Formats: sequence, structure tokens, C-alpha cells
Amino acid sequence: MRGSALGLFGCIEAGGTKFVYGVGTGPDDLIVDSCATTSPEATTDRVVGFFRNLRVPVKAIGIGSFGPVDLDPASPTYGYITSTPKLEWRRFDLAGTVARALGAPVAIDTDVNAAALGEARWGAARGLSDFLYVTVGTGIGGGAVTHGQVVHGLVHPEMGHIRIPHDRSGDPYPGGCPYHGDCLEGLACGPAIEARWGTPPRDLPAGHAAWKLEARYLALGLNTWVCTLSPKRILLGGGVMRQRQLFPMIRAELGRLLSGYVQARALLEEMDSYVVPPELGDRAGVLGALALAMK
Amino acid sequence: MRGSALGLFGCIEAGGTKFVYGVGTGPDDLIVDSCATTSPEATTDRVVGFFRNLRVPVKAIGIGSFGPVDLDPASPTYGYITSTPKLEWRRFDLAGTVARALGAPVAIDTDVNAAALGEARWGAARGLSDFLYVTVGTGIGGGAVTHGQVVHGLVHPEMGHIRIPHDRSGDPYPGGCPYHGDCLEGLACGPAIEARWGTPPRDLPAGHAAWKLEARYLALGLNTWVCTLSPKRILLGGGVMRQRQLFPMIRAELGRLLSGYVQARALLEEMDSYVVPPELGDRAGVLGALALAMK
Repeated sequence: MRGSALGLFGCIEAGGTKFVYGVGTGPDDLIVDSCATTSPEATTDRVVGFFRNLRVPVKAIGIGSFGPVDLDPASPTYGYITSTPKLEWRRFDLAGTVARALGAPVAIDTDVNAAALGEARWGAARGLSDFLYVTVGTGIGGGAVTHGQVVHGLVHPEMGHIRIPHDRSGDPYPGGCPYHGDCLEGLACGPAIEARWGTPPRDLPAGHAAWKLEARYLALGLNTWVCTLSPKRILLGGGVMRQRQLFPMIRAELGRLLSGYVQARALLEEMDSYVVPPELGDRAGVLGALALAMK
Repeated sequence: MRGSALGLFGCIEAGGTKFVYGVGTGPDDLIVDSCATTSPEATTDRVVGFFRNLRVPVKAIGIGSFGPVDLDPASPTYGYITSTPKLEWRRFDLAGTVARALGAPVAIDTDVNAAALGEARWGAARGLSDFLYVTVGTGIGGGAVTHGQVVHGLVHPEMGHIRIPHDRSGDPYPGGCPYHGDCLEGLACGPAIEARWGTPPRDLPAGHAAWKLEARYLALGLNTWVCTLSPKRILLGGGVMRQRQLFPMIRAELGRLLSGYVQARALLEEMDSYVVPPELGDRAGVLGALALAMK
């Protein structure tokens, strides 16, 4: 096994409803298991048990976690979950608990940042020093890579919470974000679609008016990120983006919004390869955590 | 002279109305001259003449230029001005013309990116690996530094052209951007203020309603950039920001927009040192070009 020679790496996708964890060295040899997210202690016990049952120790473990997560290496609460609405998990030392239990170095980042790293290593962003990975599902999040590294800055980006134009005469839904009402996430995440139309997104037909509005809102977000980050490609993943009819609609609307102002062939002529789905699918999170461990 | 031992560096701030150029090694020994921006040939002849008249050759020259500029080192038109409305300058090889005339290496970037580098080296962003420099004047532009380097990505950011909420019942002005109408720049640059109120910004009293609206729009921009880039500090410069009453208004509005969602002391308690004026003042552009030469 290739892993034995190189050493195995561990990975944990820490999600709000389930944890997925595994060992390997890449998409071809990754072995995974999963469990439901319960209390911090019971969940991490289960994860730690999985790694202890391995025949070989892991060289390092990567964690892509729901958040917010304290990512400041100089902070006394580095690696802790911080102000999550999940009260039991608030101020839980996720990285430290795993590191101490397994005696292995742990690298932690947000779930979306980890997924971006996975796509950079094995997926749709191979070879790109500057790109953006966006997930549209229960929430909206973005992981930006600039100069080949994930952007953290002060804390980490919270891209779903940008404000965009909202025409209340055309769309009276007030937005569902408990903090900001009609920020992008409040208007365009999966639960917002369901709240607006009374039907879960997966049950809305491809020709439903919901998708035109959704494409408009997501294109407004993409327009903002193109103007702010100038990414070389944008990957759009998450449950809502399984509606593949959204891609051509978003590309067309983004082109209209940019109006030819940014002179770049990628935006003017090659939009089909500029706004694309990720390639790692359901394994983006756990493979992203693996990329983090191997970095 | 310190410059003689280290070697002198040259710098050019290439503006749409004037060029400022100089030699030195920092704010304390910089010697500058300037000329009006006329044709590309006449203007660069004048600049080249300044450097030729020096007693010592310069080790390198930095150019902070109006744009858009082709910043892709792999492009055959690297260092050219591209789609500017100034027709004479369109497709002019600014970096190459200067480099060939003076036989010195030239580094070029946008004016706002150069200013960001200057503030990082000698101004209000000293020691910060991740920050944002925004200028609000004839236009609105932003230079983002992440991981200690200016963000270029696909082309370079065009931050003024993000879309923000625009309540037409409260502000019927349709926006003045020829490409996007009511993008941030279209609503909040100096000419937009003048077009909306019929008075140049510098003649509007500090208590005028214009400033409340301006602070609202700029805070919406800052909110977007905090969510997207997570900068450790935001510097707000340019002619409009000489209205110092804007700073406390923008900070308060940004705090309201974020609503405590991003848990960081800088945003929750230390907003006075988070949104600040630049320190290099009118010399930000030319010192930025100098920082570029010395990099």
C-alpha cells in the first residue's frame, strides 16, 4: 500500500450534523467512516477510536470544521469552535482534544477552506494560485485562495454575509439570516429558497421561477467577489448547486453584471470554464481535510 | 547621503492628470518632481529626462499607474495600459518604454496597489500581512494585501464596482458609473456626490445629509470587504476621505451592518483603530511606487 511507505494521514470533516473521518494519501486510497454529530465528547471519542483502531499511526491529522473556528495560531483558544449556535460545542477545543488523544500534529481550518484546498490539490482548481470555492447549501460560505494560500486575515472570511441589492417589490421575502436578514445567505441559501417558495429546493422543477431569482442573487455575489478578489476561477458547490441548470444562468447573469468592464478573456469569452462545479463531489470536505493534513 | 551607499531607487506615480516622479530610499530622503499628463510620448520623455539628469543611476524603478494595467508577467502586453478611456494611452507600453529608455529594471502595479505597499512599508499598515487600502476620490479603488503580498489574481481587483443595496426611494440618484450605473463607485465617488447634490464634496458642510448617505454606502462596501477578505485593518484615503467627520460615521455604520456576527475584538471593540486614514497623505502614490521599486 502506497500509504505505508509515505506514512498515512488522517482527516476529519467536522460537520454540524455528521463527522466524516478517514485515512489515506489521496482520493484513490482514502478509507472513511462517519458518525452523527452529538455531544463534543461522545463525537470526538468515536473519531479518536477510529484512529486508535488503525494498525499504523498517522503522521498528521487535518480537520475541516463547521464554525466559526479560532484560526489565529497566537490565540490561547486556537483550534476552538467559537460562537456557534450549537451551545454544547461553543468554546470546545476541537483541535487540541484530537491532538492530545492521538499524539499527532493537527491542522485545522474551516470546512469551506479545507474543501478549497482539496480542490486545489486534486480537483477543479489544480494548479491555480488564486481561486474561489463557494458552497451554497444550508448556508453560503466561501474559501479564497490567494498566492497559493487560503485567506484567513483577521479571523476568516464570512462571504455569505455580504449585502447585495434586494428588490423587495420583485421578491418580498425578507431574508432568513438571524444576524442580517437579507444578506446573500439570507436570500439565497437552501433554507431561504424553501422559506420563500414553500418547497424544498430539490423538489422545485428545473424551470421554476425560483432558479432565475437564485441565479440572479448568486451572480450578484460572484460579481462582488470577482471585483474584490479577481479569482482565476470560481468553483460553486454545495447541495443547491446540484441543480445544474443554475450554472449557465449564473454565468450569463455574471457577464451582464460585469458589463465587459474587467478585460479578461476568462470573463469575456471563457465563462464556461470560469464558473464551474467542484470535482470532488461529496468527498470535497474529507479530502480537503486530508489536503490540510498533508500540507 | 544614505541613498549613495544603498543605491537610489526611482519611482513614478502615473496619474490621469499628472505624473509625479522621484528618487530616494524612503520618506525622509525622497526628492520629487512632477508634470501634467499629456501624450504618452511627451510625458514619458519628461520623466525619462528627470532620471537621466541624475548624477547616479537608479537601481530599479517602481511605477504605480492609472489603469487598467496588464499585470500578468506571462502576457505579451505586460506593463501596458489597457482599456483606459484615455484613447492616446490605450495599449501604451508604459513599463517597457521606461525600462528601455533608462536601462533599469521596472516594477509596475496599479496606483492603489502601489499606495497599499507604501502604507505597508512606511504608513498605517506597517507590520500587517493582511489589510485593505481603499481610495475614495474621482473613483473608488481598493488594494488588498494578503499573506504579505498585493492581490492580483486574474487581472487586479476593481473593488469600486461591487453592487450594494440602493434604496431609490431614499436616494433617487441613479448612479454615475458608465458601465454599471449604481455600483459603489457610481453611488459614492466624488463626482457622484457632486452630481447628486449639485455641489462639489469639498463645499458641502460637515453636517450636510450627503455625509450620512456617503457613510452608509462606504460602510456597505467595507462590510462586503470584511466578509470577503477579513482584513486586519482598513485604510480609507483619497480626496473624499479628507472629510474626517466620515470616519466615526462609517465605523458606527459598519458595526451596525456586521451586527456582531464576526467575533473579533478589532471589530467589536477597537473599530477606531480598524478603520483609519492612511499616514502618507499626498505622497502615498509616489512613496508606494518607491516601495514597489525596493521590493
